[in-house]
Amino acid sequence: MDILEKLHNLYGHEIDEQLIKYLNREVSEDFKDTVIYQVSTGGKRLRPLITLTATRACGSDYKVALPAAAIVELIHNYSLIYDDIIDEALLRRNKLTVRAKYGDNAAILIGIWYREAIEEAILETRDPVSFARETARTIRAIDEGERLDILLEYSGRKDPYFVENRLGPRLLSNWESLYNTYIKMISLKTAALIRASSVFGAMSANTPHCVKALSDYGTYLGLAFQVLDDILDIFGDVKKFGKEIGKDIKEHKLGNAVIVMALKELNDKDKEDLLSILGKAAITNDDVKKAVEIISKTNARENASKMAMEFAEKSEKSLNELSNNEFVEDLREILRFTVTREF
Amino acid sequence: MDILEKLHNLYGHEIDEQLIKYLNREVSEDFKDTVIYQVSTGGKRLRPLITLTATRACGSDYKVALPAAAIVELIHNYSLIYDDIIDEALLRRNKLTVRAKYGDNAAILIGIWYREAIEEAILETRDPVSFARETARTIRAIDEGERLDILLEYSGRKDPYFVENRLGPRLLSNWESLYNTYIKMISLKTAALIRASSVFGAMSANTPHCVKALSDYGTYLGLAFQVLDDILDIFGDVKKFGKEIGKDIKEHKLGNAVIVMALKELNDKDKEDLLSILGKAAITNDDVKKAVEIISKTNARENASKMAMEFAEKSEKSLNELSNNEFVEDLREILRFTVTREF
Repeated sequence: MDILEKLHNLYGHEIDEQLIKYLNREVSEDFKDTVIYQVSTGGKRLRPLITLTATRACGSDYKVALPAAAIVELIHNYSLIYDDIIDEALLRRNKLTVRAKYGDNAAILIGIWYREAIEEAILETRDPVSFARETARTIRAIDEGERLDILLEYSGRKDPYFVENRLGPRLLSNWESLYNTYIKMISLKTAALIRASSVFGAMSANTPHCVKALSDYGTYLGLAFQVLDDILDIFGDVKKFGKEIGKDIKEHKLGNAVIVMALKELNDKDKEDLLSILGKAAITNDDVKKAVEIISKTNARENASKMAMEFAEKSEKSLNELSNNEFVEDLREILRFTVTREF
Repeated sequence: MDILEKLHNLYGHEIDEQLIKYLNREVSEDFKDTVIYQVSTGGKRLRPLITLTATRACGSDYKVALPAAAIVELIHNYSLIYDDIIDEALLRRNKLTVRAKYGDNAAILIGIWYREAIEEAILETRDPVSFARETARTIRAIDEGERLDILLEYSGRKDPYFVENRLGPRLLSNWESLYNTYIKMISLKTAALIRASSVFGAMSANTPHCVKALSDYGTYLGLAFQVLDDILDIFGDVKKFGKEIGKDIKEHKLGNAVIVMALKELNDKDKEDLLSILGKAAITNDDVKKAVEIISKTNARENASKMAMEFAEKSEKSLNELSNNEFVEDLREILRFTVTREF
């Protein structure tokens, strides 16, 4: 049994109760099942488990952090509902996405509802004003991260529609700007919420001296997590992870660590070939295969993996600032588990 | 000069400053103009003007209510951004909608951003916890109202897609259930925010004894406003109002006061004809003309108009509970102006 399963057995039931409580507030009977669907599709509950473990690491009872744990899991699902609309995704966790099940319009109304469930959870934290401020910052970060992710996609596409409708300037002028945008994008889109999950532990425990360490722990864990996810996307074992290989390539994403690292090394001819695949209107499985072949000529996989390990080390190191206890050990274990997924 | 122009001259500049301040918080340079666009398309600022006037009616300086005024105008625009995605609308106030200008995906990211601007405004009110609670309630009400509005549309459509994808049970079984759903829908979709605009005045002034009167004032003003809007939609003078006539018919909406009142009176044959027009996949201008002819056989226009006037009377009467002053007079004048728009 891995650490997330162990923690899920301990807290999963109470977390789910919280999610349902806040989502059910003032909901009409007809809308109830529709609203609950997204959180009922499962997920590992990584973020709320970090919050509860961080709270105990700071010396408090995890129960004081249950509303905060609900906030981070609801933010995660709030962003997934809209991401799936934007990506026109049909499946997530092998189940229909909210938009596939209820339609895009209903999905928008459900997304709006999630944000107010978050507000209800904020109102039951120890310090609603601080949690409201931190929540707004986190959601804005995710929103800006998603904007940069779309921008990275548009920058790679050749279709004039995407050139015209871009959400900002094109980013292909030089590699450094692409790399910097990539790091910024994953800091915002992925790491900001994992950081908040961790910091909410210190805030719930009312231990301001733990904030800095938990902030770094969450930020670097989030960065490592996303870079590893990028590697899995391109080189993952489809049977082991049940994930479609090369989904990022099919979605024209320049915003994948492996692709970014490959673009640094490739000669002009290969670079042009890779970019022309990513820029195609429709990308076939053969295209994906060809793109992976080009990428495999470089050290992109190793370099991305090195990047992830450096982030993981920084995350681990930050925990040394906390007085050690079994829950700090659990935080270490969550990190180790996250970075040793095979790829 | 009408009352709204007069009040807009007084407060419009400060309201706009507030909106921009909260929307600009932590925004990236590239996203700034995109985010501001929706509020820059204008509008009468009816809701924040009600908030500031209600605050003065309660005996306070309007300046204490500026964050609350920003909240209600931002909620209004937040809901418009998503409504326009749902309705696939191209124009609003004779300008491109956010989705038409930037695309649906960008519009979703902008909608998310508006909600966090609302959070920033909440944090600068006199009592963030109370404003957060009331804001969450109001947004949920609008969300549920929009769900009922879509449900009313789907209930009238014959296309199996809409029957399958409905957001709740079909509502055509009997007229009373249709009428009750209509009243509930406009209470939530329109009146809840006008009520909040008015109540936020009492909350900003910290005068709890004014809440009940201002709550009734806003609720009934909102109901009258929406019923009149429905009448204008069907019978309005297109040249005077620059609005497309029969837009609700084209959008298959059973949720229009005139249509609801007509369905009560029509004989079986006419009722069937009207419902079959509303149920069509594509509704032409000729269909709209025919629908209006059928509706005109009834007293629906007069009965809807009577309904609006009864709401307006209740709104006006509630103001008698406040000690009279020039700002209470302004609230009366806002009501009178709203209900005497020619139709």
